[in-house]
Amino acid sequence: MPPNHSDYYFGAGPASLPPAVKQQICAAIDHVTPGVSILELSHRSETFANILNQARCLLRSLYAIPDNYHILFMQGGASSQFDAVPLNILGDARHASYLDTGLWSRKAARLAAKYTRIKIIAGLEQKNNKLRSIDAQHWRVDQAGAYFHITPNETVDGIALPEAVLSDTTAPVDVSAEAPVVADMTSCLLMRKVDFSRYGIVYAGAQKTLGIAGVTIVIVRDDLLHRAAEQIPHLYRYDLHVRENSIVNTAPVFACYVTGLMLEWVHKNGGIEAMRTQAKKRADLLYAAIDAHPLLQNNIDRASRSPINVVFNAERAGLIEKLLRNAQAAGLSGLAGHRLAGGVRASMYNGAPVAAVEKLAGLIAELT
Amino acid sequence: MPPNHSDYYFGAGPASLPPAVKQQICAAIDHVTPGVSILELSHRSETFANILNQARCLLRSLYAIPDNYHILFMQGGASSQFDAVPLNILGDARHASYLDTGLWSRKAARLAAKYTRIKIIAGLEQKNNKLRSIDAQHWRVDQAGAYFHITPNETVDGIALPEAVLSDTTAPVDVSAEAPVVADMTSCLLMRKVDFSRYGIVYAGAQKTLGIAGVTIVIVRDDLLHRAAEQIPHLYRYDLHVRENSIVNTAPVFACYVTGLMLEWVHKNGGIEAMRTQAKKRADLLYAAIDAHPLLQNNIDRASRSPINVVFNAERAGLIEKLLRNAQAAGLSGLAGHRLAGGVRASMYNGAPVAAVEKLAGLIAELT
Repeated sequence: MPPNHSDYYFGAGPASLPPAVKQQICAAIDHVTPGVSILELSHRSETFANILNQARCLLRSLYAIPDNYHILFMQGGASSQFDAVPLNILGDARHASYLDTGLWSRKAARLAAKYTRIKIIAGLEQKNNKLRSIDAQHWRVDQAGAYFHITPNETVDGIALPEAVLSDTTAPVDVSAEAPVVADMTSCLLMRKVDFSRYGIVYAGAQKTLGIAGVTIVIVRDDLLHRAAEQIPHLYRYDLHVRENSIVNTAPVFACYVTGLMLEWVHKNGGIEAMRTQAKKRADLLYAAIDAHPLLQNNIDRASRSPINVVFNAERAGLIEKLLRNAQAAGLSGLAGHRLAGGVRASMYNGAPVAAVEKLAGLIAELT
Repeated sequence: MPPNHSDYYFGAGPASLPPAVKQQICAAIDHVTPGVSILELSHRSETFANILNQARCLLRSLYAIPDNYHILFMQGGASSQFDAVPLNILGDARHASYLDTGLWSRKAARLAAKYTRIKIIAGLEQKNNKLRSIDAQHWRVDQAGAYFHITPNETVDGIALPEAVLSDTTAPVDVSAEAPVVADMTSCLLMRKVDFSRYGIVYAGAQKTLGIAGVTIVIVRDDLLHRAAEQIPHLYRYDLHVRENSIVNTAPVFACYVTGLMLEWVHKNGGIEAMRTQAKKRADLLYAAIDAHPLLQNNIDRASRSPINVVFNAERAGLIEKLLRNAQAAGLSGLAGHRLAGGVRASMYNGAPVAAVEKLAGLIAELT
């Protein structure tokens, strides 16, 4: 099968891995020596237990995750958590609340609606000049529901919760009371500041910032483990994953291994602070180029712009197509907007080199 | 991480991949050229759609699977199907039946019991000389339940349903009526003859005969798609996987790719008939060595012996430990019995070379 070769791939996920990580993976597959490579390693082996433990330790240390949180490795992608969250923690509550910030938060709410009444909290507002925003002036964490679900970074809409909303204790949002905050961080874990003590559950599919498709990280507070529904599927049970150290059945060994490598890579390259600095540099470059262009627009309030998924469109027909063609010719791919949104989307996860973003910004500056 | 190098690894799964397949994988990861390798390939790309389609076509052609069966790629391992099967096809039936043949069939039944009443059909019998057997003289497919579940090859117990029971139309088992037969073929798909028209659903985790951990193949008859429970998790729905060609959310791209390679490998190496011949050769060699040894025993009736997972124990203390030590020294690993069973277990999937089995048989012959 001929993969699509280019200088950089800006796809929304599965995302590009750092070349150093790919090199480690190739060495571990080792098709020369007979025997067990990482592809064939038993999920019951000590080697695999160590891989999971090291990954857990690294993630815990990168984010100073408190001891009363468990780190689980599950299958199914973040979408499986759209069901797993209510199945695990609804208990006998009469409703749960979802902050509506875009396509993914709506999908999470829709799937949860088969288990209980879902209260939708409007997160998006239109500011002056039709800018969209999701700052925290007009909504609060609903404390009456079983939990309050948020999607801090919306990949299709290119909009994000300001980092401070749930990371600073000085933030306007009160998370002190009963309803735990549950966050889908698939597109921003390892890229933004997170104060885990302000969350009940954080989950993330691995294929954007944490490795390859096939494993999902769930970080869950200890007191939320004992509310599972009677008919919850076995492999969706958080308590079981805690008890079995996430080796409930044959785990996706290879995908877990790659997640471990990505965590090591982030650790070696300066941790979360360094990742944030790089993300800001890339985002500043690209938004500056878009804002400077007379015919391109990103209609999101500066404070709510995603530093990770940058979306924009053009006022003149044909201009986007021209930019995409120029980008392809320059070795930049994966820039077409989501099939439901159109325009351009540049997804810049931790592996994205600033040089590739500079190149894209240059193409925008030249675009007429 | 230092993988365990040996001449051959007899582990029960994840199983050894053929060296030729590992070589193809390494080439596809390609860490030299920048851009998108198989690890990063989008689940929405045409390349991935082709990978899934080719894999479907190959499996369909290898087994002549009729057109009214859908081939799905899911996540979670075979254990996820222990829940998915009842959630998809119970409908409003009052019970489902499970043939009890060993550890895995019992586990499947236990997990299904939270959804309905489970009727256990005793499959195992003790023959003269304490040999265990599961031939079809003493049980029938229960036609009154929602479905009849079987585990044709039990990896822990080393016991198997005689191939003819559900493959030959002359077999004693009547599968013509309402209750569809559902089979967990995780440890025998691509290794035994299967007449799919006699089954309602066949499922298999990939990591034994179909590639690596992280993807599960489900083959489901069209008329069984419209019975899903109201509260079935989104990603467990067979009808949705059919509608979306198994790209419901981010699919485990790499694991699917490896499954495609394994199907090609089987096809190139003579198809199911050739795999059966090789399996018989390996099994005959090993059982002959065990039967010839005065102190080793496999207490399973010849017709019910698994040709894939060969289990045996010794009458004299210390003998098994000695054999395992000798095997390790000779470059053969993964032979310790299941943690619940003890003794020796040699798992010989399609990648297992006859030469490695000959070596093991030689060690048994010399064992005193």
